[in-house]
Amino acid sequence: MRVFLFVPNSMQQRCFAPADLDRLRGSHELVLARSEEPADLLREWDQQAPLADAIILGWDTPPMTDAMLDLAPRLRLLVHSAGSVKHLLPPGFWQRRIRVVTCNDALAVGVAETTLGMMIAGLKGLFPANALTHAGGWKSDPFVLPGFPVRELFDVTIGLIGASKVGRQVIRLLQAFEVSILVADPYLSREEAVRLGVKRVSLDELMRQSDIVSLHAPALPMTRHMLGGAQFGAMKDHAIFINTARGSIVDEEALARELKTGRIFAFLDVTHPEPPDSDHPFRNLPNVVLTPHISGAMSNGCRRMGRCAVDQLLLFAQGLRLPGEVTAEQMAILA
Amino acid sequence: MRVFLFVPNSMQQRCFAPADLDRLRGSHELVLARSEEPADLLREWDQQAPLADAIILGWDTPPMTDAMLDLAPRLRLLVHSAGSVKHLLPPGFWQRRIRVVTCNDALAVGVAETTLGMMIAGLKGLFPANALTHAGGWKSDPFVLPGFPVRELFDVTIGLIGASKVGRQVIRLLQAFEVSILVADPYLSREEAVRLGVKRVSLDELMRQSDIVSLHAPALPMTRHMLGGAQFGAMKDHAIFINTARGSIVDEEALARELKTGRIFAFLDVTHPEPPDSDHPFRNLPNVVLTPHISGAMSNGCRRMGRCAVDQLLLFAQGLRLPGEVTAEQMAILA
Repeated sequence: MRVFLFVPNSMQQRCFAPADLDRLRGSHELVLARSEEPADLLREWDQQAPLADAIILGWDTPPMTDAMLDLAPRLRLLVHSAGSVKHLLPPGFWQRRIRVVTCNDALAVGVAETTLGMMIAGLKGLFPANALTHAGGWKSDPFVLPGFPVRELFDVTIGLIGASKVGRQVIRLLQAFEVSILVADPYLSREEAVRLGVKRVSLDELMRQSDIVSLHAPALPMTRHMLGGAQFGAMKDHAIFINTARGSIVDEEALARELKTGRIFAFLDVTHPEPPDSDHPFRNLPNVVLTPHISGAMSNGCRRMGRCAVDQLLLFAQGLRLPGEVTAEQMAILA
Repeated sequence: MRVFLFVPNSMQQRCFAPADLDRLRGSHELVLARSEEPADLLREWDQQAPLADAIILGWDTPPMTDAMLDLAPRLRLLVHSAGSVKHLLPPGFWQRRIRVVTCNDALAVGVAETTLGMMIAGLKGLFPANALTHAGGWKSDPFVLPGFPVRELFDVTIGLIGASKVGRQVIRLLQAFEVSILVADPYLSREEAVRLGVKRVSLDELMRQSDIVSLHAPALPMTRHMLGGAQFGAMKDHAIFINTARGSIVDEEALARELKTGRIFAFLDVTHPEPPDSDHPFRNLPNVVLTPHISGAMSNGCRRMGRCAVDQLLLFAQGLRLPGEVTAEQMAILA
């Protein structure tokens, strides 16, 4: 099998460990794109696409057009070494007989790990505690911030909105902790909930009962502003809201209003748009930890995606099931 | 068996879930101390100690004297529902034939969970990232703080100083992550290291090779200032130092000097003394997260200790092994 790694050079370094590329070279022919700029990359496509049986895409890969794909008659597999392929494929793509896999799972692990860190840091009050000590204070009772008691990730209720790939990785990581997990997801069956060890609830019930609400739903027209004033207003006092998904799922004005009361705490890694205005309340409130869309893999964690891409190529070559395969039907409910 | 819960009333509420006390009441006689103040508690001791077969101690329990123990001829078991019993027992205690158990394990879990949160937050740069956004910034490259790239808890080396109870709980939690674990501990055998899936190294090697160094050693005369200028100077650029153990194990002046270079980052939950001076550098450096000794159980997590105390009482009543038992010999190497 001849494989073309159609990813800008710098991103290759970031996402593909030499050991993983060597695993591929062990039994296949691997050609690496050598350029960095889109125009140069597209010239490489014209040379390499006609010969490729499989092509690896990634972050910063130029979107594909029908004309480009017409140049690749041997192509049977596209491996996207990151998350969403929506923006990468031309409209007529699904009529072609090319299979597509993503490395959503590998990306999801990193987002879930960050989310777990936010859960522990949030309940423990690491941010208000640090602000307190840097302002000259020490323990106080009730500490740390007035109204934000220090708590542990124990015997609390975690509400996950969306049993997505990230949501499921969060569930996996929470297995090591003694907590109750609620999940609101219209696509989660009763049987699957039992298998995952979670309780299936409505969004309203989740917002009311959870000590932490963490958003793991896709950004779709039907999820736009899914969380608004009614949902945030239903949250418990001292509850924590975490968004590592997409800003557009949230009515941010309503969230800002609730945060201004000081009643809840938030970790926001995403906003809509990004970046938020320089005077946006999310940037000024002491009960908001705002990070610049970094919850997924940014540096060393990116190599998890390259490894996943190579894994799936090797599975494909052996005719085995591809865990990251996406189909035309799934595109409607995937981010 | 008649059990006396010799813990101030407010601490009973904090550490003992009603369901756990009911488990004990199911087959034993349980008497709860009713007072809050030491003088009142000691009066309750005089009444209850003569009748007690087992006594539960806890945070804020007054230290025991030989005279107090002379009043308790039936006493066969002391259950400390927290960590160290050193300060609670009189010098001649070990001549008495009273067994002692602690709930160190239950306390260790909470400290380990906080440590894991610090590891994720630290590598991910949540603190500098939040400082950046609150100052009006967004993503930059290399981000977030100059010199502190955003990283993931993946394919990195974690150095744990001390295979203590907390150290072992950290190892357990790290099983869900793809990292290499080094442990420096003179009491860790080769076989035990293999069983734990860690690499046994010298302290010097650990300091040189680790992306995160986390301290889990006991505060003893021989560990005082165990980490000084040579050790901190040997740490990698961008490495993270976490101390959830005790401040006295660290030469804090040497640590402050290294931190002032901006080369490493630190999470310090403990200092020596506590609190640190109001103008201590730990309070002012942007690469120090200083929290006021809150890494262990503070609120809901305390009930893990009460549960552990009840578990061990029930094991004792059945003549089974007590996982938290401490002996005179162990006291020399325990905190």
